[in-house]
Amino acid sequence: MMYNTSAGIVPGKINVHLVPHSHDDVGWLKTVDQYYVGSNNSIQVACVQNVLDSLIPALVADKNRKFIYVEQAITHGFFALLSFDFLLEINGGMCMHDEAAPHYIDMIDQTTLGHRYIKEQFNVTPRIGWQIDPFGHSAVQAYLLSAEVGFDFLFFARIDYQDRAKRINEKTLEVVWRASKSLGSSAQIMTGISPKNYEPPSDNFYFEVGDTSPIVQDDMNLFDYNVPERVNDFVSAAIAQANITRTNHIMWTMGTDFKYQYAHTWFRQMDKFIHYVNQDGRVNALYSTPSMYIDAKYAANESWPLKTDDFFPYADRENAYWTGYFTSRPALKGYVRTMSAYYLAARQLEFFKGRNEVGLSTDSLADALALVQHHDAVSGTEKQHVADDYAKRLSIGYTEAEKCPLLNISYCPPSEVDLSSGKSLVVVVYNPLGWKREDIIRIPVINENVTVKDSKGKVIESQLLPLLKDSMSLRNSYSTAYLGKSTNVTPSYWLAFSASVPPLGFNTYIISSAKQAASHSGMRTVYKSQISQNDTIEVGPGNLKLLYSGKRAKLMRYINSKTSVNKLLEQSYIYYRGDDGSKDLQPSGAYIFRPNGTYPIEPEGQLSFTILRGPLLDEVHQRINPWIYQVTRVYKGKDHAEIEFTVGPIPIDDGIGKEVVTQITSNMISNKTFYTDSSGRDFIERIRDYRKDWNLEVNQPIAGNYYPVNLGIYMKDNSSELSILVDRSVGGSSIADGQLELMLHRRLVADDNRGVSEALNETVCVFDKCEGLTIIGKYYLRIDPVGEAAKWRRSFGQEIYSPFLLAFTEQDGDHWANSHLATYSAMDTTYVLPDNVALITLQELDSGKVLLRLAHLYEIEEDTDLSVMSSVELKKISKVTEMNLSANQERAVMEKKRLVWRVEGSSKEQPTAVRGSPVDPAKLVVELAPMEIRTFVIEFYSERGSFSDALYRRSNLRRKATFSLP
Amino acid sequence: MMYNTSAGIVPGKINVHLVPHSHDDVGWLKTVDQYYVGSNNSIQVACVQNVLDSLIPALVADKNRKFIYVEQAITHGFFALLSFDFLLEINGGMCMHDEAAPHYIDMIDQTTLGHRYIKEQFNVTPRIGWQIDPFGHSAVQAYLLSAEVGFDFLFFARIDYQDRAKRINEKTLEVVWRASKSLGSSAQIMTGISPKNYEPPSDNFYFEVGDTSPIVQDDMNLFDYNVPERVNDFVSAAIAQANITRTNHIMWTMGTDFKYQYAHTWFRQMDKFIHYVNQDGRVNALYSTPSMYIDAKYAANESWPLKTDDFFPYADRENAYWTGYFTSRPALKGYVRTMSAYYLAARQLEFFKGRNEVGLSTDSLADALALVQHHDAVSGTEKQHVADDYAKRLSIGYTEAEKCPLLNISYCPPSEVDLSSGKSLVVVVYNPLGWKREDIIRIPVINENVTVKDSKGKVIESQLLPLLKDSMSLRNSYSTAYLGKSTNVTPSYWLAFSASVPPLGFNTYIISSAKQAASHSGMRTVYKSQISQNDTIEVGPGNLKLLYSGKRAKLMRYINSKTSVNKLLEQSYIYYRGDDGSKDLQPSGAYIFRPNGTYPIEPEGQLSFTILRGPLLDEVHQRINPWIYQVTRVYKGKDHAEIEFTVGPIPIDDGIGKEVVTQITSNMISNKTFYTDSSGRDFIERIRDYRKDWNLEVNQPIAGNYYPVNLGIYMKDNSSELSILVDRSVGGSSIADGQLELMLHRRLVADDNRGVSEALNETVCVFDKCEGLTIIGKYYLRIDPVGEAAKWRRSFGQEIYSPFLLAFTEQDGDHWANSHLATYSAMDTTYVLPDNVALITLQELDSGKVLLRLAHLYEIEEDTDLSVMSSVELKKISKVTEMNLSANQERAVMEKKRLVWRVEGSSKEQPTAVRGSPVDPAKLVVELAPMEIRTFVIEFYSERGSFSDALYRRSNLRRKATFSLP
Repeated sequence: MMYNTSAGIVPGKINVHLVPHSHDDVGWLKTVDQYYVGSNNSIQVACVQNVLDSLIPALVADKNRKFIYVEQAITHGFFALLSFDFLLEINGGMCMHDEAAPHYIDMIDQTTLGHRYIKEQFNVTPRIGWQIDPFGHSAVQAYLLSAEVGFDFLFFARIDYQDRAKRINEKTLEVVWRASKSLGSSAQIMTGISPKNYEPPSDNFYFEVGDTSPIVQDDMNLFDYNVPERVNDFVSAAIAQANITRTNHIMWTMGTDFKYQYAHTWFRQMDKFIHYVNQDGRVNALYSTPSMYIDAKYAANESWPLKTDDFFPYADRENAYWTGYFTSRPALKGYVRTMSAYYLAARQLEFFKGRNEVGLSTDSLADALALVQHHDAVSGTEKQHVADDYAKRLSIGYTEAEKCPLLNISYCPPSEVDLSSGKSLVVVVYNPLGWKREDIIRIPVINENVTVKDSKGKVIESQLLPLLKDSMSLRNSYSTAYLGKSTNVTPSYWLAFSASVPPLGFNTYIISSAKQAASHSGMRTVYKSQISQNDTIEVGPGNLKLLYSGKRAKLMRYINSKTSVNKLLEQSYIYYRGDDGSKDLQPSGAYIFRPNGTYPIEPEGQLSFTILRGPLLDEVHQRINPWIYQVTRVYKGKDHAEIEFTVGPIPIDDGIGKEVVTQITSNMISNKTFYTDSSGRDFIERIRDYRKDWNLEVNQPIAGNYYPVNLGIYMKDNSSELSILVDRSVGGSSIADGQLELMLHRRLVADDNRGVSEALNETVCVFDKCEGLTIIGKYYLRIDPVGEAAKWRRSFGQEIYSPFLLAFTEQDGDHWANSHLATYSAMDTTYVLPDNVALITLQELDSGKVLLRLAHLYEIEEDTDLSVMSSVELKKISKVTEMNLSANQERAVMEKKRLVWRVEGSSKEQPTAVRGSPVDPAKLVVELAPMEIRTFVIEFYSERGSFSDALYRRSNLRRKATFSLP
Repeated sequence: MMYNTSAGIVPGKINVHLVPHSHDDVGWLKTVDQYYVGSNNSIQVACVQNVLDSLIPALVADKNRKFIYVEQAITHGFFALLSFDFLLEINGGMCMHDEAAPHYIDMIDQTTLGHRYIKEQFNVTPRIGWQIDPFGHSAVQAYLLSAEVGFDFLFFARIDYQDRAKRINEKTLEVVWRASKSLGSSAQIMTGISPKNYEPPSDNFYFEVGDTSPIVQDDMNLFDYNVPERVNDFVSAAIAQANITRTNHIMWTMGTDFKYQYAHTWFRQMDKFIHYVNQDGRVNALYSTPSMYIDAKYAANESWPLKTDDFFPYADRENAYWTGYFTSRPALKGYVRTMSAYYLAARQLEFFKGRNEVGLSTDSLADALALVQHHDAVSGTEKQHVADDYAKRLSIGYTEAEKCPLLNISYCPPSEVDLSSGKSLVVVVYNPLGWKREDIIRIPVINENVTVKDSKGKVIESQLLPLLKDSMSLRNSYSTAYLGKSTNVTPSYWLAFSASVPPLGFNTYIISSAKQAASHSGMRTVYKSQISQNDTIEVGPGNLKLLYSGKRAKLMRYINSKTSVNKLLEQSYIYYRGDDGSKDLQPSGAYIFRPNGTYPIEPEGQLSFTILRGPLLDEVHQRINPWIYQVTRVYKGKDHAEIEFTVGPIPIDDGIGKEVVTQITSNMISNKTFYTDSSGRDFIERIRDYRKDWNLEVNQPIAGNYYPVNLGIYMKDNSSELSILVDRSVGGSSIADGQLELMLHRRLVADDNRGVSEALNETVCVFDKCEGLTIIGKYYLRIDPVGEAAKWRRSFGQEIYSPFLLAFTEQDGDHWANSHLATYSAMDTTYVLPDNVALITLQELDSGKVLLRLAHLYEIEEDTDLSVMSSVELKKISKVTEMNLSANQERAVMEKKRLVWRVEGSSKEQPTAVRGSPVDPAKLVVELAPMEIRTFVIEFYSERGSFSDALYRRSNLRRKATFSLP
């Protein structure tokens, strides 16, 4: 019997858009490779190869059938065999990235990688954002990774249960999301929220091999014929959904995690439903895609509710806030950020050098970094062995990228060179930013008699900081853990000196042995017991002074003589006890932050408080307790404090999971209000115990106020702004007025029942001895007069993201220095980028063309001077083509296709946002309005032959994979 | 990557024959239809449609791939789309029949149905017996349903664990099985026993979607490449099996129950194994079939061990004898036997009438009967709802067959006609046997004033037997249970009279009201308390007298005046307490008989013992206890006793399962020896606590001595033979010398852990009241002088199998009698079949040709007179073609193709068995040697036009089913 599956949209009826899909995480309980080949099925029955293999005949068998596929990273190019565009119209990045932990640059990169791949291979341009699984949704995802990419629709499933209830009640699950204050309606996106999840409408409609939903038994020659009952089930479910949906179009997400392992089982039943439901005639069922669905919605010419800001935090029910994962696996999160920065710089260097035709490239790192943006990767919500797999991939990618000839010297990790033999160490310092920049570099050295010379041979000021016992033991332990043996040579000092490097350029420094030692840091160790009353200690060689109470061994005051800021300031540690689930089976875990009590961490017993002073920086070393160590650095040339924390192993031998938080406490009147960035870009106002979209019922006064922090968090009052910037993705909040907090590390004893089935209890083993993971990280603190803080947050934020990249070599005598260029800038020596513009992509493409992205760093009204239109002049360029954000189509084409949605209530219409004008090919000036990112493919004149004369093929895992046919 | 799967056999290497298969029970935990469409997956994940749909592309994709498919009943003709002969070379019956509970005629019928279907549709003749799952193996399966069908190989898996251990040790898992004493080497079959089961060689080689065996990860671009490890696994398993196997060919059964739901998952891995294992070269792996396997074995020209008798009983481990299922679901077993008999007779009538071109036919009954021979159907080892489904199918088949015009009268079930209005009841009595026959007929009547006339109008002797209270209440209860309402009219009597019917013919009797009552049975009810000492009661109007002790209300002695047999004889009931598994988790259950104590059942309290006497028969009514009622009948013209037992509801409110057994106890010196039939045909000697093939370690002295009984069980000593014949399949044994026992009913409280997950606790509900199933059955008992018992066992056994078939109509006056033929025989009036020959099939085929099967009923040396060559003359026949047993090929062709296997040790060679000569077309005489069954397709001269002028299409469920394509 043939089923009639040809139904299209029928006007006047409820149209049930059946959207077949499989949600194939690129790693979660199994690694991405295990998911692909289908190994390790004892953990989870999942084999993407089955999905792909069985899909093709199912789609070939009936051209009316549809399917959408999201995760390019796991398809291994399989769809190259097909010409079903609808398969690829969704997301199209390498993965369905998380929206809390990834930085927007990583999101752009992974999306670009996927989009350009799909464009090249299949000539398809995805139209739909399909973020069905991430645990909350960021403004950047909406306006940047959806609207600016050229999507017509963004669909997802996970929003706060209270929000969802209200939206169901008010038929506001579908909205126009205008997520950018600065870009307004020019970067809004039509957004659909699922009424429940990304699965079929009820337990009654699952058709995987082995699923227990009743199949449609339509063979009258067999027993149990059930077509009427099943048609009734379908119609009831359709009407129920139509009752909470605007227009007569509803979408059913027909699939879930790793389904369609034998695709035929689903299509066979959907064929029957479409056939019999349409024979019945009460509603109309059709095979569809989100694209067909949204076109139907658009054709209805409705007005839609407006949504601003974002969808954080996410709770799926009372007491279940998914805000723990903002911090889960802080070491992985830090590694991702480090690799992200490295990848940005390495692509620049690859471009300068020209992509190597046969050698290694940054491509593996690109793949690994794209993969790790997945919503169960950098999020920290995967099983331990999967986290290990991501780290391994990053490591391999880094190693391959590192092996490319870099600046004509071989790059090696910083090592402790013995300079006593007359050799000297050449340090090449690369600055990936478009601004000239000075920063302190620290290198471990064995000898104290060393000197640092600049590229002109002039000795420059340097400072030796003794390596203290605590950091030495950690260093040895982790070296052994990761190298399998302890290191031979133990450095005694950090050598610090200030490097100054031109934009997109490098400078060279030579470290050699000297008769005399470099400036020793003055050192004073204070024991609490020794401290008398009123023993105030002032720290900082420059404008910024931190005042400590020697008695309490604590920070007390922040003074900047230049800006006249003088504020009481405390910094402390607490931990939240992670709920073990004994109350209501909702423990704190990898996803969920469920605190059960707040416990201050006070320095215990006779612990030291050591201050190192010197001409370049002062350091305050504090052992807070046996498992928290902290170094606070105040640099002569910087107006912020740098806090390096070492946290771990968090003890759990008392059976209690702990979530370690640092709190910065001032007497500012912050009025419940604080600000956190969205994916490292726009700052969004957060108000404690409050949601703009609904009347919040507070059941978790701590977890329910946590937000992801990628760039920073700040608060303000009438006089000043206190800002904290971070070196990785963390969770942060302001639980009390005048106070900000960051969750730095978590170690838990129970699983939080969201599938991962492991307690988040990261351990590191050295031979047979295992202990909890210790992490080292940094955050940066500054207080500015109110209204003057954005400059630091934006420009220094960019410096944190893109630190200097160091390369080392040794030389005998002056051999290397004499034969190499000592300093270089890719930019005209008279030119630097404007202060409000960053170069976020400079990358040679396979075609030899170059991908260039420039980002305005400021929002409208963020800074008096810098929240203005800016312009960058391009030179020596033969052709420039402006692209959409993911560079898979020309910007003009994208804008022309864009659907224009109407918003309810004309009062909500904004004036058209300011945006830079199209680039005049004669003038080559790129204008950038606040928050604007512009993407170009540029071509150089042929004399830049090093990369223009060949088409390189990328050869990475994704391409080399082999495929079996069904 | 393409895998090289083209490997054939490589001489000198271990050849691993990979045989892909799916074992798809046609009902077990789900019904056959549920298994087909894949509903009810919460009980078991199984969908045969998935298997079939996914198999085709997998086979098309690589012509080297193989697959075998057994159960035709569930394929719904699917393979019509294919031309892969290898799919169908196995079994080819409608199901993989059980070997304990089915009667050989049913086995032949269901095999013929499948074989002819496959032959017609695909022109394939199966070569292999594939009885991988049945729980023990019968001699009849070997010599009749394998050798006589033309198979070259019989393969199975389930044999006694002690037997298997010895065979593994001695490399005797592959044998020549010579199962028929009478036919000897002319009907032997090469037989393979799996070293373990019908699954892959270890847990390491399962590849269903979701299985956890490691897949072969051969993509070097992904992590976890494991080809060397997996090749080693394969080679190790192959060598291990080769070490216990003769020749260098081993077979791996690559599949199990309901696997290959997505066939590709298995083939993908097997492709890789074949490719990489053969690259490795230590062993040779190939896609194969049992046919290829056995041809390779044959080519090795080995001699093989000889096996005789059978493989009953089966224990899969200590204390786990699968001998409970011999009796499980006795009502279903009885229904099957009743329908089997009805089907045999109905086909004869259908043939006489000519197959109806458009109307209903016996085809549905054929299908239902074929299905219920399945090894989880008549075996009683299915879930209750599945047993209900089988019964429903039989009922539908019966109803359809019954509706065919039969003998020109409408057939109706015996009903209690009120004859007082002057109407009379016409009873047409059909005799399906080839012999003239007299038998007592019993019909319930309301009035006592009735008379019976024969077809010539002559009043014949009749006898009225009052319906006693006990049988009335049971009748009312079950009528209500099955009809949903109680009956209106309550009969008061059974009217008994003797009917005499010609061979393959009918006779007519008229029952009408009379002024006088028929002969009333004299009735004497004895209460135990009234009985004095030495109160001996003699029962029986003819040669046979049973002597009862009135005091004990028990049978004491069996006397036959004609044969001078005079024997002490007792008959009693006991029950075995079914083990509840508390000892070692092995309870008694649907499969397993695990007694835990023997409990005699003595008549309790003031229970009656009633004797009815009359001219035709005497009846002894005994209420043994509140749930066992027994009627013993002794007929004037019969030299056996008929015992009708009513057992149930077996009480389990004490939490104890009970297995109810009747024991017949004599003082015969039976010397541990008794005899049970094989599938209703050959008798096999059984010796208590002994096995011919190995040194039995006895751990279950009762359960381990149980055997299936389909025809009968007997024992003997120097002077006499005591035989019991049964009306259905039961389990029986001789646990003590001089004693035989039959297990009649079982009701248990625990599941026996073999998958069915239900206690065998059959209940019947009347409205809201449920109680244990009550069964009614009969067995027949006779003692003969030694050497003279076979005649009764064989000829009366045939009468039990094929009782008279009754049809009823009413008439006013003599209307019907005057207008209808009153008596008829399909055979020449001067001819009956020889006493040692039975007509077991007479059936019009779709082609209009007729299928005829004649069976010699005696084994060699079984009877002095009748164990001889016999002959049957055919007449009025234009053409006769001798076929193999399943009638899918000419006998001569089969014999020509047959592989001839050598047996170890020439001393074991027998003289060639005696067999009938080929039929001379001129003489049309069919010779039948002892135990020979000969099958013919015959054509009549054209004057027999009623069925020769059209080709009828069978239209049954199997044909009408619709198929979906993948």
